[in-house]
Amino acid sequence: MMSSENELEGLREQIADTTREIIDLVAARNALAKKVGELKMKGSIPLEDAKVEDSLVRLVLGECETKGLDGQTGLKILSTLLAEGKRVQGFPAKQQLITPMMMSAKAQQIEATGKKLLRLDVGEPDFHPPKAVLDATSEALYAYRTRYAPTRGIPELVTAVRQYIDRRHHFPVKDSEVIVNPGGRFGVYMALMSSVREGESAIVIEPNWPAYKEGLQYIGARAISVHTTLEEGWLPSVDAVQDAIRPNTRAIVLSYPANPTGAILAPEKFRGIVEVADEHGLTVISDEIYTDYSYAPTPSILETPAKKFILTASFSKTWAMTGFRVGYTVSSEENISKMMKIQSLIVTCVPEFIQRGAIKALGSDPEVASNAAAMRERIDLASRELDAIPALQYAKPDGAMYIFPQARNADFDSVAFTMKLLEEKGVTISPGTGFGDYPRAFRVSLGGSKETIVEGIRKIGELLA
Amino acid sequence: MMSSENELEGLREQIADTTREIIDLVAARNALAKKVGELKMKGSIPLEDAKVEDSLVRLVLGECETKGLDGQTGLKILSTLLAEGKRVQGFPAKQQLITPMMMSAKAQQIEATGKKLLRLDVGEPDFHPPKAVLDATSEALYAYRTRYAPTRGIPELVTAVRQYIDRRHHFPVKDSEVIVNPGGRFGVYMALMSSVREGESAIVIEPNWPAYKEGLQYIGARAISVHTTLEEGWLPSVDAVQDAIRPNTRAIVLSYPANPTGAILAPEKFRGIVEVADEHGLTVISDEIYTDYSYAPTPSILETPAKKFILTASFSKTWAMTGFRVGYTVSSEENISKMMKIQSLIVTCVPEFIQRGAIKALGSDPEVASNAAAMRERIDLASRELDAIPALQYAKPDGAMYIFPQARNADFDSVAFTMKLLEEKGVTISPGTGFGDYPRAFRVSLGGSKETIVEGIRKIGELLA
Repeated sequence: MMSSENELEGLREQIADTTREIIDLVAARNALAKKVGELKMKGSIPLEDAKVEDSLVRLVLGECETKGLDGQTGLKILSTLLAEGKRVQGFPAKQQLITPMMMSAKAQQIEATGKKLLRLDVGEPDFHPPKAVLDATSEALYAYRTRYAPTRGIPELVTAVRQYIDRRHHFPVKDSEVIVNPGGRFGVYMALMSSVREGESAIVIEPNWPAYKEGLQYIGARAISVHTTLEEGWLPSVDAVQDAIRPNTRAIVLSYPANPTGAILAPEKFRGIVEVADEHGLTVISDEIYTDYSYAPTPSILETPAKKFILTASFSKTWAMTGFRVGYTVSSEENISKMMKIQSLIVTCVPEFIQRGAIKALGSDPEVASNAAAMRERIDLASRELDAIPALQYAKPDGAMYIFPQARNADFDSVAFTMKLLEEKGVTISPGTGFGDYPRAFRVSLGGSKETIVEGIRKIGELLA
Repeated sequence: MMSSENELEGLREQIADTTREIIDLVAARNALAKKVGELKMKGSIPLEDAKVEDSLVRLVLGECETKGLDGQTGLKILSTLLAEGKRVQGFPAKQQLITPMMMSAKAQQIEATGKKLLRLDVGEPDFHPPKAVLDATSEALYAYRTRYAPTRGIPELVTAVRQYIDRRHHFPVKDSEVIVNPGGRFGVYMALMSSVREGESAIVIEPNWPAYKEGLQYIGARAISVHTTLEEGWLPSVDAVQDAIRPNTRAIVLSYPANPTGAILAPEKFRGIVEVADEHGLTVISDEIYTDYSYAPTPSILETPAKKFILTASFSKTWAMTGFRVGYTVSSEENISKMMKIQSLIVTCVPEFIQRGAIKALGSDPEVASNAAAMRERIDLASRELDAIPALQYAKPDGAMYIFPQARNADFDSVAFTMKLLEEKGVTISPGTGFGDYPRAFRVSLGGSKETIVEGIRKIGELLA
């Protein structure tokens, strides 16, 4: 017994020595990174270098395989090393982008002072939730449906979601493959959390909703952007997606109709991307929040043979229920079970009275049709108004509730323009840089009334003239 | 230019080599850890050794200081090394504890089959929310308060919270020091996220609500438990807390009245712990969710001179609003600003119509008084019933809504007893192991009616007899 304790003591000393050596090497690595930073500064070489990072990912994964070390552990350590290396290289603290949510907060502040604004920034429709939803929510409230609810969602809503999915997509889902979330944003966060870990990466198609990249950053994972252009109709090619895959890539996020462009990827191209994802073992996260505002054939992940997928959906846009904070996610039982753990740890459940309202939303087809028709009219109207502004180009949206015009002037600065437009015209938009590398573009939301849209776009034209 | 590019190339090669060496050392460290695991298995030595871990934390922090490496980076790497070391040592996957939430899910499943249970597991009172809350929520709903709300909370609720705090604690708070959360659980999660990082640690007082430890585990931080006993009235000494502090400790979580014991730390002892925390630069996270169910002098972090603190509070228990998912957090502007970022990223906001209801709760003093009086009666009643069971001991709660009896039999297995009680008597309780190292104890919730409490405890007595 004594000798085995001595042996244990010896091993522990060796572990401590090795730990110390590791820390010393990290410090040495930092010193090298610092020199690289100085050299870059002198030579005006851009600080970030994705290729260098990629080669380190390959090196680490190769070394892990050779030495029998878990690859994810290697990637996690590399992620810490890279972050620390960037810090000592003097990388500027992450540039603060102006996201739609920030514009909205700013606009709300100004409105609180009594000033009237023409809001073309809002990511929500001005429609009312269906009356049946309000009634069911209120009734449930007075029936004291005010206790803790199951983390997955109340069985009645889970069943209603299953039936709705079967009706729309002829896709059979089990209860264990569904979870009701407090909003689509939480669903997206959990989708990322359950498929991508620290040191890994996921592909996103730019321009896109900032929450995807922010979520990945929060996890400590890298977002690999596939850049699309107005000339391409804001749609990626299958090849571009294939080329973006790295050895540590675990997922790809798709969302059609897209925010902010309203572009819709044709179902056969969508399927092509799904096939590439399948070949590489990636999870396809499909955010189908705008599906009901579609005026062209629209893909759904549930209508492809995707092997690993997560569908996120929300009651926010279709039924104008943004302020209810309720959505749902469909995936494998294994993924949903991971999400249940996170959801129960962080938020417990979605209020039952809200879930009772959501059940009624799924049966409100006439309201969906009328909201979709109204949004189509707004897209047509906004397009006509934009046609009258020679300084702008745009691709007419096939869906969603936004237009993403781009200035013909190559030096256009959408952030400066956004601020000037707010100050001089009282109109709020969201700068293109919030959605990716798009300094010449900005997002116009069609969530407001026709009058707001017409007047707002005309004022944009005036300022550009 | 060319030579500086060559220099850059050379540095990058050195960085790659160093990265490879680090990975190789991690693999070597793992091989050593594996040997330790084998040795422990042979010698039946317990796998986990907190002292070894502590000495490694000290070693890493010392080495970071010597080599000029950021301490948090060192701790994060150590955290990855320790986790991987444990995995290869053959540590059993984290033992699945039976938390109150799991008991509740199990009970709900059984009840869904039509079987009647005596629920002594529920962590929520059977009171109704004040009528003014229901009315205000419903009115806001029909007034279309159904859009996105500000992340911090609507200004009217933030103001109401500030005034409520000033009225109760004579503590002036600014708007920027408050955030409205989707439930106390989310507030606790954000409190932990904003004060403790991966590789760091926080002190928790056992027995306690499992969400504290689960939250720390989720962050990759260590929970250092201060064990308390029935003989101590389930209260920690200031010295015990002081002794638990490690070099990587950043916070301490306190919650009085306590779940599951109902014990209340005297304000002067609470203040003593706050002083120790201040001396060590720790953040005191005070979860004051049960404050209104108090029948002895009760401390509040707002009535101490704490330098770094986070108060989490909820509408769930006091006003029987568990299913509304709304609470609030008070801290420094800096912490609240960190929380705003997390909250806006993950959940956007709390539904506005729910916030309109919460405002009315803060003005519902008569309901609070009547709920508190009812809970006091239940504590008295349950205590009398427990007095009649010779196999159990307990400390009479000074507050909250639970009792935590302990079997006199040292070999008592609360998990086995919980299962037997459910099967043979149809009574649900929560085993003590869900709250810390308490195999002889279990939690009896007083959330149900007097009849449920009396009948349930009598059946516990029958099974023990």
